[in-house]
Amino acid sequence: MSETPQLENIPEDTGKGLSNGMDTKQKEELELAAVYVSDAQHNRNIFFETQPQAVRLYLLYNHWLLVVLLYFFIIVNLLLAVVEQPVLLPVPTWASMLVELVCLSVFSGRLVHYAKVIPRDKFWKDPKNLCILVILLLTLVDMIIYGALKATDIYSVRWSRVFRPLLLVNFTEGRQLRRAFRSIRNALPQILSVFLLFIFSILIFSLMALKLFGKRGLKTNSGKPYFTNFLEIVFDLYVLVTTANSPDIMMPAYNASSFFAVFFVIFILINTYIFMSVFLAVVYNNYKKYLKEEVRQLVRTKRHKMVRAFAILQERREGLEEPVVSHASWNQLVRLVQADLSHAHRELLWSVADQHNQGYIGKLAFVQLADLLNIQVIAVKSRPHPLQRWSPSLYLSTPSRWLCRAVQHRVFVMVYDVIILVNAVFIGLDEEDPLIRNSEWFFLALYLLEILLKLYAMEPRAFYSRHNFWNWFDTIIIVSALVATIINTAMTSVGGYSSRQILDIVFTLRVLRLIRVVDSIKRFRVIINTLIKIGPTMLTFAQLIIVVYYIFAMVGMELFQGRIQFFDSDSPGKHSCGNPALQDSSFAQLNYCKNNFNNVVSSFILLVELTVVNQCGFTAVTHPSARLFFILFHIIVVIIIINIFVAFVLEAFFVEYTLEKSLLHTSLEKRIQELGVAQDDLGPPNLVDAMETTDNNLRTGEPQTRLMFKISSTRYRTVDSLLQRMFEADLDPEDFGGEDDPEESSNFNFSNPVFSSI
Amino acid sequence: MSETPQLENIPEDTGKGLSNGMDTKQKEELELAAVYVSDAQHNRNIFFETQPQAVRLYLLYNHWLLVVLLYFFIIVNLLLAVVEQPVLLPVPTWASMLVELVCLSVFSGRLVHYAKVIPRDKFWKDPKNLCILVILLLTLVDMIIYGALKATDIYSVRWSRVFRPLLLVNFTEGRQLRRAFRSIRNALPQILSVFLLFIFSILIFSLMALKLFGKRGLKTNSGKPYFTNFLEIVFDLYVLVTTANSPDIMMPAYNASSFFAVFFVIFILINTYIFMSVFLAVVYNNYKKYLKEEVRQLVRTKRHKMVRAFAILQERREGLEEPVVSHASWNQLVRLVQADLSHAHRELLWSVADQHNQGYIGKLAFVQLADLLNIQVIAVKSRPHPLQRWSPSLYLSTPSRWLCRAVQHRVFVMVYDVIILVNAVFIGLDEEDPLIRNSEWFFLALYLLEILLKLYAMEPRAFYSRHNFWNWFDTIIIVSALVATIINTAMTSVGGYSSRQILDIVFTLRVLRLIRVVDSIKRFRVIINTLIKIGPTMLTFAQLIIVVYYIFAMVGMELFQGRIQFFDSDSPGKHSCGNPALQDSSFAQLNYCKNNFNNVVSSFILLVELTVVNQCGFTAVTHPSARLFFILFHIIVVIIIINIFVAFVLEAFFVEYTLEKSLLHTSLEKRIQELGVAQDDLGPPNLVDAMETTDNNLRTGEPQTRLMFKISSTRYRTVDSLLQRMFEADLDPEDFGGEDDPEESSNFNFSNPVFSSI
Repeated sequence: MSETPQLENIPEDTGKGLSNGMDTKQKEELELAAVYVSDAQHNRNIFFETQPQAVRLYLLYNHWLLVVLLYFFIIVNLLLAVVEQPVLLPVPTWASMLVELVCLSVFSGRLVHYAKVIPRDKFWKDPKNLCILVILLLTLVDMIIYGALKATDIYSVRWSRVFRPLLLVNFTEGRQLRRAFRSIRNALPQILSVFLLFIFSILIFSLMALKLFGKRGLKTNSGKPYFTNFLEIVFDLYVLVTTANSPDIMMPAYNASSFFAVFFVIFILINTYIFMSVFLAVVYNNYKKYLKEEVRQLVRTKRHKMVRAFAILQERREGLEEPVVSHASWNQLVRLVQADLSHAHRELLWSVADQHNQGYIGKLAFVQLADLLNIQVIAVKSRPHPLQRWSPSLYLSTPSRWLCRAVQHRVFVMVYDVIILVNAVFIGLDEEDPLIRNSEWFFLALYLLEILLKLYAMEPRAFYSRHNFWNWFDTIIIVSALVATIINTAMTSVGGYSSRQILDIVFTLRVLRLIRVVDSIKRFRVIINTLIKIGPTMLTFAQLIIVVYYIFAMVGMELFQGRIQFFDSDSPGKHSCGNPALQDSSFAQLNYCKNNFNNVVSSFILLVELTVVNQCGFTAVTHPSARLFFILFHIIVVIIIINIFVAFVLEAFFVEYTLEKSLLHTSLEKRIQELGVAQDDLGPPNLVDAMETTDNNLRTGEPQTRLMFKISSTRYRTVDSLLQRMFEADLDPEDFGGEDDPEESSNFNFSNPVFSSI
Repeated sequence: MSETPQLENIPEDTGKGLSNGMDTKQKEELELAAVYVSDAQHNRNIFFETQPQAVRLYLLYNHWLLVVLLYFFIIVNLLLAVVEQPVLLPVPTWASMLVELVCLSVFSGRLVHYAKVIPRDKFWKDPKNLCILVILLLTLVDMIIYGALKATDIYSVRWSRVFRPLLLVNFTEGRQLRRAFRSIRNALPQILSVFLLFIFSILIFSLMALKLFGKRGLKTNSGKPYFTNFLEIVFDLYVLVTTANSPDIMMPAYNASSFFAVFFVIFILINTYIFMSVFLAVVYNNYKKYLKEEVRQLVRTKRHKMVRAFAILQERREGLEEPVVSHASWNQLVRLVQADLSHAHRELLWSVADQHNQGYIGKLAFVQLADLLNIQVIAVKSRPHPLQRWSPSLYLSTPSRWLCRAVQHRVFVMVYDVIILVNAVFIGLDEEDPLIRNSEWFFLALYLLEILLKLYAMEPRAFYSRHNFWNWFDTIIIVSALVATIINTAMTSVGGYSSRQILDIVFTLRVLRLIRVVDSIKRFRVIINTLIKIGPTMLTFAQLIIVVYYIFAMVGMELFQGRIQFFDSDSPGKHSCGNPALQDSSFAQLNYCKNNFNNVVSSFILLVELTVVNQCGFTAVTHPSARLFFILFHIIVVIIIINIFVAFVLEAFFVEYTLEKSLLHTSLEKRIQELGVAQDDLGPPNLVDAMETTDNNLRTGEPQTRLMFKISSTRYRTVDSLLQRMFEADLDPEDFGGEDDPEESSNFNFSNPVFSSI
């Protein structure tokens, strides 16, 4: 799983290791080149020092274990909110402080490590590092103040918690997240224009509403005067844009006269439909524009790194003007960069790079290596079935073959689709009926049988290879359901009662099983595949949302904590959510009391609700200015981030619909076809055929192992390669990142992207 | 204003009329060519017969008066719903029936006219005509049945009303609307895939909700069992996707355990955010794809028509291989096509077409004519101010000139922006205060002064030229406000009371005045201009929405009419909306009773509300299957039409942001510059400078009239030209619509687009 070059482990599958016949200098150079290639492959953008010592430190810095450790501690640091004031899980203050100190020291260690890797002046020029430093210092100061005040029993606020999510942004690994933030920041001026116009429109409508309705003595449903205070109107109309209070806000006027509906219809048309579309258009256009610029720079940086690696490995050949890289050094390099690549796979990549079979490649072909490594090629070892090894005559007998064929037949899939649908009906029926309850065992048995049959027909390692999402999904769901059902039955028969939690899990697993049917319908598979492809990039948006939610949750908890109480039983406070201001309000009547900022979990859920529909009964219990909190949240999350998310999904779908495969991709695919090692793209590996072809080898007693290749349908190994794909048409393949002017270009290419956190 | 060629009126501004020195044959040919050009210019697509008699009939068919008449009667026909059952304005049945008969006969007449214009076999092959015929017949049958049943006092349904909006679609003039419908129909298969997947997802979530929450004995806020009926759950979760019942639907589960919020958060993430984005992506992509195909066909048809016109006018010249059109015949043609074009304007267009000043143009240049005529060139007659004619010495004196300069100065605009803002504050203040009430006169006087000053500085006809939107806006608003305020004051002082209606108008006008400030801020002007540019196309969507709303309103009135009553006063029925099923329901408590289908106006308003937020308390009073009505409405209006609207706005904004001017446009602009007749693009015509240059001519006593040109900022005269602009990059300028194979191509190009109405 390691994606960084291995230092110690020399691949075992090669006869000659790296150390043989190579002096230290050469080895160090090769390592440096491997680091460049690896950086290019993963779009790392760190200007490390090139002394052998520093390179090793840098490799350690990129080691997956350290990165995982960093993320683990960032998550722990974020999760501290659960045990802090306002408390969800009571934990002594000293314990949470201790954990936080550990986190801080890990972050400091990481920062020091980074400082050792890159030149000193680069380190201090980078706002990211300064930002982390300031955050660490502020947190420390806050902790000391808080601890001191806590010790003297004075109420104090842990204000530095707001900065925690910024660590997620500012550590070097948050590249995608930083890029998203940068794109948003760059798009802001344009968005601001539209936003001002939008606010102007709301102000004009509010003034008109004040004039039209203010003097009529209308009452809202709760008996308050309707549309008499200008600022209230502005807020109400802003909320109307989000459609949260439609049609409530319109009803008093509409009840007074049908004619007034015109006002609201025009308002909604202009503000909800036209302005929101314009927001999407502006956000989309700007986001795309800046993202394209970012990706262009990314690609140039990547090529520049590959050129550096090339410069290290290059050699002169007689009769050739341009320097080249030999097959041998290329091989050593790739082995160092990606140790888990099989020999055959490496040879395949080489044959794509060295199209004319010359034994060396030029710069252009070498530079492609990073992209080539990013195309996900699945190597399937076409091995004979273990049963075949164990008893060839039985496994290859006619009934056995017939069974294998039947399992791979279309009808088999259809039969199981029907079984799933029947199962769905049974799930929907009342499980009180013993017949239906016991039918569960029957269906479980059927599903287990399906898996076993498939395992019989297919080589187990091929069946459970990494890219067979649905096979894994099936097996995990079925086995868990089996275990949970057995536990549940055991508990029922022993204790006479069934645990609600286990039942929940059983039911959930039972329903999830039904999802499988999607995979067998082709028109659905296309959409699902696109969604799975853009899935990893959606995670960037998830991070973005979490950063924003976390900040708002922290601020919200300080502002609104305890104002609204949730009472589980029928306590007297239930009808006012524990706050007299909400007595008999619709907020309390609708039982919304649990939507509060009293702890970090309910804060997050409330923020999700605010994202969906900006309902803010909250403002009744606080100063009117608290509405600014909700409006700000709406602007940032709904108008900007959700629109960017929509823009991204749109763009990704367009790419899927319109773009053909990239040139590199096609040439790789062609090569696989030419070499006759193509794995059939349809369905699971067709091992029956493979068996037939290996029949002849059976006499030797040693079934042959064949390696088949297939390009994964999730073509993009990383988010960056999807982005690069999106804007590929606009990128110049000959642009090597301005190598002619190394001084200038290195400044340009390796400049660490600036992200000012506040 | 007439945009169709004039038959009788021979342009007066030319010395030699068409009849001079031309035989009838030539004249008829010229007329035919003019019809082709006019059809190409307005993208008409009617295969008329080419006999002179038929051409005249065809010209009559396209006469703007007849078209306006047709639309008038279509609107009257649609408005009949106001006076029909369920009645809004009581009108005797015989009267409404009579009006409907008149409408029907007008439609029949139009259809007969059309039948005479085009060949008989074409007429019967066109589903549009058959559709109109069927609708007319069905309506007649319905009227007879209804009349007969009405006479015998049996309740009957006017079911044919549902077809009325289809007339809007099927008459030849509804091209854009038809195209939109066609694009939607073509995109349906793809949308269906996503929709099925979306429904599958909702079903799975519903099943899981049933299993998770059904057995817990939870209660909704109104005390009903929570999530126990599968179909109810499906409906509730569908509504949750529209965010209408968020967070109500979640609260019982959330109150039971915070953990269950995860279910709803995942549901909203998948269905509301991801699926809705995918819908937008699919709708956008398909709509664009089919629209592009449509526009491509449109352009080919247009070019083909221009080629036909060229074939009629062409003549052979010595030394030229290709046939050409001479300046003279071109002139006659353009005069016939667009009679209101001035001589200078025509010469300008000729100079663009005949770039090398040869006196004739080839086919390529000729074909451009239709597009050239569609570029909106504003001819401004640079006339001296009337006051200058009346008293040159006074108007051209130093103080007068200084005044003119001051009025056109930036500071003048800024002073009035400040006045507007102060005025806004005064409007917001309470008008009970006599000081503030009287300040209105002061502000009115200031605004009047502004208009008078501008009229003093600018030539009135230039000031009120057609493209000066804001000048017209200002004047109309101010004068109406003046009139309304005077009437209001008079009424107050005479009768001692002020009419609420007039006050409403006064207030509205006062607030609308403030909008003016937008025009003086540049960053807003860009956005507003884009919106104004795409405005006409938005009307197509308005028609689309009206067709769909009308059908749903008619069906809804038959289904739900009278189920919910609205009581103005505090009658006993108020708390149940007159329906026992709604007694104490939140629908009645929130005072939603006026949201009903009891007449056509409230139906439309309810449908708008359903578009914004799909709240359907309605389903409480009818059979559960009535929910299908609301779900269907949501699918058609929100998922399809609103998404197409958003897609269109996005596309239009992208075009504005990214596309440069078209080639033709640029060459026209260049020509205007070269000829030195360019009107400054910034602000109103700068007449002070014009005055200075005409100074020298004053001695002759006859101030010179100069004609200046400017390309309108609303560059597209028609919706089609905007669409053509959008996809211009994909259109081949040399593609003449397959002229080589006239038989085949005429079939292809003139095929009337099929629209099956049901």
